[in-house]
Amino acid sequence: MLPRRPLAWPAWLLRGVPGAAGSWGRPVGPLARRGCCSAPGTPEVPLTRERYPVRRLPFSTVSKQDLAAFERIVPGGVVTDPEALQAPNVDWLRTLRGCSKVLLRPRTSEEVSHILRHCHERNLAVNPQGGNTGMVGGSVPVFDEIILSTARMNRVLSFHSVSGKPVPPVGAQESPLVLVEFFLASVCWQVGERASLRPQVLADGTQLFIGSEGTLGVITAVSILCPHKPRAVNVAFLGCPGFAEVLQTFSTCKGMLGEILSAFEFMDAVCMQLVGRHLHLASPVQESPFYVLIETSGSNAGHDAEKLGHFLEHALGSGLVTDGTMATDQRKVKMLWALRERITEALSRDGYVYKYDLSLPVERLYDIVNDLRARLGPHAKHVVGYGHLGDGNLHLNVTAEAFSPSLLGALEPHVYEWTAGQQGSVSAEHGVGFRKRDVLGYSKPPEVLQLMQQLKVLLDPKGILNPYKTLPSQA
Amino acid sequence: MLPRRPLAWPAWLLRGVPGAAGSWGRPVGPLARRGCCSAPGTPEVPLTRERYPVRRLPFSTVSKQDLAAFERIVPGGVVTDPEALQAPNVDWLRTLRGCSKVLLRPRTSEEVSHILRHCHERNLAVNPQGGNTGMVGGSVPVFDEIILSTARMNRVLSFHSVSGKPVPPVGAQESPLVLVEFFLASVCWQVGERASLRPQVLADGTQLFIGSEGTLGVITAVSILCPHKPRAVNVAFLGCPGFAEVLQTFSTCKGMLGEILSAFEFMDAVCMQLVGRHLHLASPVQESPFYVLIETSGSNAGHDAEKLGHFLEHALGSGLVTDGTMATDQRKVKMLWALRERITEALSRDGYVYKYDLSLPVERLYDIVNDLRARLGPHAKHVVGYGHLGDGNLHLNVTAEAFSPSLLGALEPHVYEWTAGQQGSVSAEHGVGFRKRDVLGYSKPPEVLQLMQQLKVLLDPKGILNPYKTLPSQA
Repeated sequence: MLPRRPLAWPAWLLRGVPGAAGSWGRPVGPLARRGCCSAPGTPEVPLTRERYPVRRLPFSTVSKQDLAAFERIVPGGVVTDPEALQAPNVDWLRTLRGCSKVLLRPRTSEEVSHILRHCHERNLAVNPQGGNTGMVGGSVPVFDEIILSTARMNRVLSFHSVSGKPVPPVGAQESPLVLVEFFLASVCWQVGERASLRPQVLADGTQLFIGSEGTLGVITAVSILCPHKPRAVNVAFLGCPGFAEVLQTFSTCKGMLGEILSAFEFMDAVCMQLVGRHLHLASPVQESPFYVLIETSGSNAGHDAEKLGHFLEHALGSGLVTDGTMATDQRKVKMLWALRERITEALSRDGYVYKYDLSLPVERLYDIVNDLRARLGPHAKHVVGYGHLGDGNLHLNVTAEAFSPSLLGALEPHVYEWTAGQQGSVSAEHGVGFRKRDVLGYSKPPEVLQLMQQLKVLLDPKGILNPYKTLPSQA
Repeated sequence: MLPRRPLAWPAWLLRGVPGAAGSWGRPVGPLARRGCCSAPGTPEVPLTRERYPVRRLPFSTVSKQDLAAFERIVPGGVVTDPEALQAPNVDWLRTLRGCSKVLLRPRTSEEVSHILRHCHERNLAVNPQGGNTGMVGGSVPVFDEIILSTARMNRVLSFHSVSGKPVPPVGAQESPLVLVEFFLASVCWQVGERASLRPQVLADGTQLFIGSEGTLGVITAVSILCPHKPRAVNVAFLGCPGFAEVLQTFSTCKGMLGEILSAFEFMDAVCMQLVGRHLHLASPVQESPFYVLIETSGSNAGHDAEKLGHFLEHALGSGLVTDGTMATDQRKVKMLWALRERITEALSRDGYVYKYDLSLPVERLYDIVNDLRARLGPHAKHVVGYGHLGDGNLHLNVTAEAFSPSLLGALEPHVYEWTAGQQGSVSAEHGVGFRKRDVLGYSKPPEVLQLMQQLKVLLDPKGILNPYKTLPSQA
């Protein structure tokens, strides 16, 4: 996670999380910024149960008595209005849709605890949901699971100004099995995709909940170490003549920018063509086979500018980079980041998108993109690669006019087998959720899958927590 | 963990871990450096089973057949020589002693796996051991557990020069329940106590093993992200007039040194007196109530010196700091670090040491030291406080001429109750091991302890892995 170190948290984080608060009904903030979702006239998303071979497990259905009980636990926090339930039933990519009829909006750990106790007794399935910005269908119901929204759990409970630690309430410590990964997800998203949270590892079993995607419990509070806001942020956007030069630029960067390097992203020429075509964003540099976005964050603007200056001089002089531009003012910084951040949106507008989020040895990272272009030929509209180089994280996307089983057959299991051959991971940062649960075996040995299953049974014996997610369906 | 960011790994790490290799018999390297252990004429350490109220669980004892089986699994790696077994039976603090009669030295994950399978079948208890530098008795046997040494598992399996990632072998992936926290411990120690490893969290259950102290499995390989070696390292050693000023210096530091701040340590005046008296280390600054050690690590010596200069000017000018010295050359840097790092050794020479490693809100961090001085009066020889301020980690130590049950009664449970009252943790970085297992309840709720117990039963149903450690004995 080196090149995406935690950045300073914006001041509003200390006041609460806008967007999360009250935004469950109609997506604002992050969703609007990502430019997706719910435009009037958008075609209806097919129901997940009709599109995928998945069968409802024998959970109970919500009764009038259940609703009355929920109303007692969370007065005024029980949503059953079908219109208000439309958005939280559909994932951000608009390809999955559940048919939940109830959404609950607790404010405290105790309320979450009471809800889960009731659901456990009644054998009711629960789908925890935070910002609903997931990429693998982990945050929306598959059938009629109760949506447990953490949108109102948005208070900063306390803040230590010396250590920079907001601390969770006592309540959270007392209810270890009731915890908010989805609030964490909201926080992460609100803070920006580039902020990587490094949870302090607790050697007591509760670390299990990190990354468990709501299948083991609901995280209701997190403690985050907040660095000081950097005084200077610079972004450089560069054109590279080949992928070897992208790698060499990254190595050089780590040496010359060291402690101020806060992001290193790459994208290929097709990504740039697509953000140009569909979003009318103009490239700020000459056309190149690859582009690199480098961000620095530091405490001294002069020092950072000097380091970046030396680096750019070296990179241009040695031919690693053929053209580049730099930004320090916020408006231009945002503009450069948009070229990278809005690729997903451009791809969505290009057609049906087959999405892969792979972790690979950096040296082989782009080989799979070239391999697929040759393999698919004219069957694919576009094959693109971009991502977080420092993490070895490739976003591999293939677009086509429409979904086609034969194209899917050409992609899978090939992509997963290729990844396994490199000892890579079939899910780098998007998680597993609904979409990737049946391909976990390509990067996890059977013993690990068995361990996951055993932990699930231990913590959620009835399997009511986010069913149909994360764990392989055959398990 | 902010102020102790991972530093660059020294070149030798890439070649293997000296000291770990072949050093299990007689401690060299880290142990020698810490200046403890096995000097000729040192009095014998009492057996743990005679000093503490602990009963051997009904495990089998090692037979000739077992030894023959081990010899087949690890040819040449079975140690039964009583002299060679003396050191690995005694902990680094020389207050605990087991009576193990066998030490095994596997080289591969497969060998570890075969050993554990045999021990499981035969109901033989196992004590995994790495550098044996633990502070809580987690790494030495309590009775006759087989010592499973990871000293020979010291190869760097591969290294990615672009990403800086050494990768574990396929074997390690295939044996998830056989993993090396103790090798990790060795690595950490060899790299230096200031290096904090941030393991990338795996959302698959294997993250359980981090911090499990060998009670759930044996970690046989780790993957570490290696930052570039910093081009410049500076250390400042400062005197502060009070603890409020120590806190303010830390805040100021985080703002002005930001990304280059790699360590922030504090110690009180008594610590300085003790390293002076027992180790003849002279204070480089005027006598002060508190001292602070600040380390910076960066990629540009000029920039770092300028930042540090500005900071020191501000700290001296505003009265936060009353005197200070700075070092850039390696010899003086080491000398300044020794003042902080050798406190433990000075305390050992001062008499019997009651040791506490607490995690507390920084604002209240030193209150417990003042509280204890008033509470204990002349019953204690010295009460000192030092530690890693950025982590809220206080090393609270009380010395006396000899062990005394009445002094222990004045300290415990008072220290733990006080810590619980601050929502602190009774173990910050030393772990739980043998010493702290029965006080875990002061910082973990019963549900968490129960979860730990359930996970133990799930992964180690016979309880053969590092028994008498980490989990409360009454559980």
